[in-house]
Amino acid sequence: MTLADICVTPLRRIATPGGDVMHAMKRVDPGFTDFGEAYFSWIESGAVKAWKLHQRMTLNLVVPVGAVRFVFHLPQGGFRTEEIGAANYARLTVPPGIWFGFQGRADTPSLLLNLADIPHDPDEVLRKAQPDIPFDWQSP
Amino acid sequence: MTLADICVTPLRRIATPGGDVMHAMKRVDPGFTDFGEAYFSWIESGAVKAWKLHQRMTLNLVVPVGAVRFVFHLPQGGFRTEEIGAANYARLTVPPGIWFGFQGRADTPSLLLNLADIPHDPDEVLRKAQPDIPFDWQSP
Repeated sequence: MTLADICVTPLRRIATPGGDVMHAMKRVDPGFTDFGEAYFSWIESGAVKAWKLHQRMTLNLVVPVGAVRFVFHLPQGGFRTEEIGAANYARLTVPPGIWFGFQGRADTPSLLLNLADIPHDPDEVLRKAQPDIPFDWQSP
Repeated sequence: MTLADICVTPLRRIATPGGDVMHAMKRVDPGFTDFGEAYFSWIESGAVKAWKLHQRMTLNLVVPVGAVRFVFHLPQGGFRTEEIGAANYARLTVPPGIWFGFQGRADTPSLLLNLADIPHDPDEVLRKAQPDIPFDWQSP
């Protein structure tokens, strides 16, 4: 497991009368393994939710509203950051075993959809407080 | 198949520091059969997208942003309307074989997530023009 195993897949936004259609994931897409749960998380402008590590869950992350900076960390691998959102519309596939946090990067709240391969299970999540993994969330 | 086969499942919105979490669907939930594709559709304030009938797809519809009125129709069964959105947060499960259209009912664009049991396939979709099934979209 390295931070290079995180996969970024550009997604299509299709102009449609009455409102655009935005792809998220098909079962034939790279990164799809199984469907366990879909849930949304709002992240307020500038707010940080960090840190979590899923021991079993593979995440598929899509941001249809706003912009979100994701920061990934492995003790042996340093940091990797990816910013996705409505203007840089892509899906992040995150295998289990990676510490991550995220931050709202729009002026208004951003909306994140996680298409996870297993249902939420608090027993498979490890948590650390934000200061326990030093990252400069004020960096541009 | 009747309009009573459309299932409304209330969903939880969980207050969370930095931004709320909103459930969408677990694989153990009522209405889940299989995962084929997840996609978003924006619907502008007052705009109408109508009519479609999926011959094979079961829809699971969630509206995390704004409010959307759905109108369902069967030739032998008349009409059924359901309005869901951030303030009436629920999932609609729509079996195949039902005509439907939808309308943005917020002052700003609304966002719809469809968790469908098969990937998009234009050959399984029937379409009618909006006037072909008379419904008063201006009704309150």
